[in-house]
Amino acid sequence: MPDSTLTVQLERSRSAPPLIDQLASQIRGAIEDGELPASARLPSTRALARQLGVSRTVTSEAYATLLAEGYLESRRGSGTFVVERAVAAPALDPRAESTSRWLQHPAAPADVDPPSDPRVPFRICEPDADSFPDSAWRTAARAAINEAVEEGYPPPEGDADLRQKIATFLLQERGLTVAPDELMVTSGTAQSLDLIARATLRPGDLVGFEDPGYRLARQIFTDRGGVIVPVPVDACGAVPEALMDRGGDAAPMVVYLTPSHQFPLGSALSFRRRQALLDWAGRRDVLVIEDDYDSEFRFDGPVLPPLRTSSSRESVVYLGTFSKSLSPRLRLGYVIAPAPLRETLLRLKVRSDQGTHWLSQRILARYLGGGGFTRHLRRMRRLYRRRRDVLVQSLGPLPAGASWSGLAAGLHATLLLPPELPADELAAAAEREGVVVASVADYQLSRPAQNGLVIGYGASPEDQIKAAGRVLRDVIETRSFR
Amino acid sequence: MPDSTLTVQLERSRSAPPLIDQLASQIRGAIEDGELPASARLPSTRALARQLGVSRTVTSEAYATLLAEGYLESRRGSGTFVVERAVAAPALDPRAESTSRWLQHPAAPADVDPPSDPRVPFRICEPDADSFPDSAWRTAARAAINEAVEEGYPPPEGDADLRQKIATFLLQERGLTVAPDELMVTSGTAQSLDLIARATLRPGDLVGFEDPGYRLARQIFTDRGGVIVPVPVDACGAVPEALMDRGGDAAPMVVYLTPSHQFPLGSALSFRRRQALLDWAGRRDVLVIEDDYDSEFRFDGPVLPPLRTSSSRESVVYLGTFSKSLSPRLRLGYVIAPAPLRETLLRLKVRSDQGTHWLSQRILARYLGGGGFTRHLRRMRRLYRRRRDVLVQSLGPLPAGASWSGLAAGLHATLLLPPELPADELAAAAEREGVVVASVADYQLSRPAQNGLVIGYGASPEDQIKAAGRVLRDVIETRSFR
Repeated sequence: MPDSTLTVQLERSRSAPPLIDQLASQIRGAIEDGELPASARLPSTRALARQLGVSRTVTSEAYATLLAEGYLESRRGSGTFVVERAVAAPALDPRAESTSRWLQHPAAPADVDPPSDPRVPFRICEPDADSFPDSAWRTAARAAINEAVEEGYPPPEGDADLRQKIATFLLQERGLTVAPDELMVTSGTAQSLDLIARATLRPGDLVGFEDPGYRLARQIFTDRGGVIVPVPVDACGAVPEALMDRGGDAAPMVVYLTPSHQFPLGSALSFRRRQALLDWAGRRDVLVIEDDYDSEFRFDGPVLPPLRTSSSRESVVYLGTFSKSLSPRLRLGYVIAPAPLRETLLRLKVRSDQGTHWLSQRILARYLGGGGFTRHLRRMRRLYRRRRDVLVQSLGPLPAGASWSGLAAGLHATLLLPPELPADELAAAAEREGVVVASVADYQLSRPAQNGLVIGYGASPEDQIKAAGRVLRDVIETRSFR
Repeated sequence: MPDSTLTVQLERSRSAPPLIDQLASQIRGAIEDGELPASARLPSTRALARQLGVSRTVTSEAYATLLAEGYLESRRGSGTFVVERAVAAPALDPRAESTSRWLQHPAAPADVDPPSDPRVPFRICEPDADSFPDSAWRTAARAAINEAVEEGYPPPEGDADLRQKIATFLLQERGLTVAPDELMVTSGTAQSLDLIARATLRPGDLVGFEDPGYRLARQIFTDRGGVIVPVPVDACGAVPEALMDRGGDAAPMVVYLTPSHQFPLGSALSFRRRQALLDWAGRRDVLVIEDDYDSEFRFDGPVLPPLRTSSSRESVVYLGTFSKSLSPRLRLGYVIAPAPLRETLLRLKVRSDQGTHWLSQRILARYLGGGGFTRHLRRMRRLYRRRRDVLVQSLGPLPAGASWSGLAAGLHATLLLPPELPADELAAAAEREGVVVASVADYQLSRPAQNGLVIGYGASPEDQIKAAGRVLRDVIETRSFR
């Protein structure tokens, strides 16, 4: 295992510098910035090549350059390392000179989305805060704060009443039959994923991961030593052949999927692929992680059944969250896990935070019991559908070769673009006009990345969407006619 | 009725291995030898504890170890069984054949305290739930729930207002000058420790750790690959020479200390040792982790200053919690870390749970701002001091060679015993009379363990303490005259 996770972003356009130079320059920068500390071990050229989706020539040549320049040293039989004192005296980073031993751990580098700017109209994966059901929530909260504070630590599996209410909700809204004792409350999906990664992965274990996919999830898996196996995604969701065609010993330990509304492309996993994936996972003893982050908001067509059903219960762990349906400030989610995995997760939960904060659980249990949640979801579906329609209308007829993906559900959609309209350039042009929009490439490991823009519409009022949509349309038209 | 009768012989001398390990190892052996056949049902933890004359902690933890190792399985509602094919013919790893690949991770084994039994009078480290300041808390809560829910995820560093209030509290109560921006709110001390371990430790790194000490903390460090270096504890706290006398390259990466009120012995780290430890940590570049879990409750003598002061700020990370001063159900704590460490902790916080649940932070900020907390702490100090006095009185004059440790502060005290009164046997005898009390040996790694009983008095009403104290006194007297 390398000591450090390298964060490298390679630009693949034909006008970009050679990949070898890009890679060498970024590693050099990481060493100078202290992101790769002295003595950190680098991944092998083979592992790095796989991780970046480049040939091994690229990684070998980049390492050779840095070895020659004295940034790296090769130690026989143990790998390639950042040399001691690679950093010149007057460093940019004030820590560089005085960095304590206990600050040299590799887990630090960040690869997560930066905090979202609340002024940005197209931010992704956030619900509309103004639509929070204040009145019903406050009624529930007033009742909950009048309950006596119970003794001791909160139970690691979560409040019994809340688990009961979630089970009822899942049956009604998702057709999922689950006993409250199969459920476990967590402090949100990041924690759910962290616990699962910690329970299942040893360093070097393979993780099948949708590519493009949810970056924070990827980071959590690699933090725990997981090695990402990218699974391509198309209009029918993740492509299972990418996993099934791998050789004998190469089955991943876990596979992370967003089958109802793939993040970020928005496609739903087709029935045939569901069956193929579950069948393969059962045969190869792979744990399927189903992140059902926003399935509450399906506008067109029937809600798809979850992968986790009674027949797949032994190989699927299901994650739900209230971050999209209520608010990410709540920090409440849940996990339905195969029984033996659940036991391990509960044990690790104690070592993570002893149990989920109690008051919000009590409020949520009362709120769900009050029956207003179904109405709230219906209202939000209408609101988000309108916002989606405004987005589509404001962009108008799409240029030839462009198409929408993931319009049927969720809080964001993806605009797939033809090669002559490069998403990164459009995004940069839009940002100059004050509209921040993400590129699919930001979420993708392998190259060439899919060419598209990821457009969140859930958190923005209609007039903002309309205005920003027009800016985007102008940017696209300007480029189309160039 | 269990299917099989276990034949177990436990050795109780203080030089013997921990009872948990002895028991687990003998059951493991019985399974491997076929003495306990596949599918055999084991006695309940309660029955086995009674049969062996040990505390239920011992049997529960031994079972938990074997469950995690895959020797046993738990079937809901029917008990604990030897797994089918637990004995793999040639495999070293007995789990290999019978469990899913993704259940074979080594992180599972449990070493944490079992959920505490609310009927038990002497449970440790829990505040009095009946004294929770309901009225002032509800006033704060009513105000907080009327605030609008802010957009987006909670900030990983915590609510700005709450950090300001904590800084004011620390200055007033602990004489600690800290800027709100140096503080970080966490979901309690378990998370604080987990983040610190994750930020600083690589597998194999050494962790100086008070022995006896706080088991959950030890488990969190070993989960992250830390290797424990036991630091003996006496009436003046941790013995720094145990660390300082180690050879050249053997300085630990971090040292975990409870300097104000050592857990579980209750001693305070002497001034001379504080200076020696800080001086050594600075010289050897060791991070000192100061867990100040219950310093609010000092009854006799002045409150000791924290290790974390302005002169030690670069090598001490300070942990505080509201679990003892308000309620462990809140799941709110905080960390004051050297600036570069804090940056890493914030990054890891996002990957752990995105940020601490928002509502309780808002309530706590308002509650702390209301000024009632100081009054609450004063009231609780009086209450706990009375309970401590009742405990000491109910046990009466101690037998020769016995002495109290840690009476000056906190929610528990330790009764140190002479060799002719073995703590484990007294605890087993007390449990037969319905009084559960912990042995210092349960918290200690190295052998022989210190001979003593750890007696929590914070969570129990005076009459319970009085009754249980008398039982304990009788048990001790019976044994003394035997």
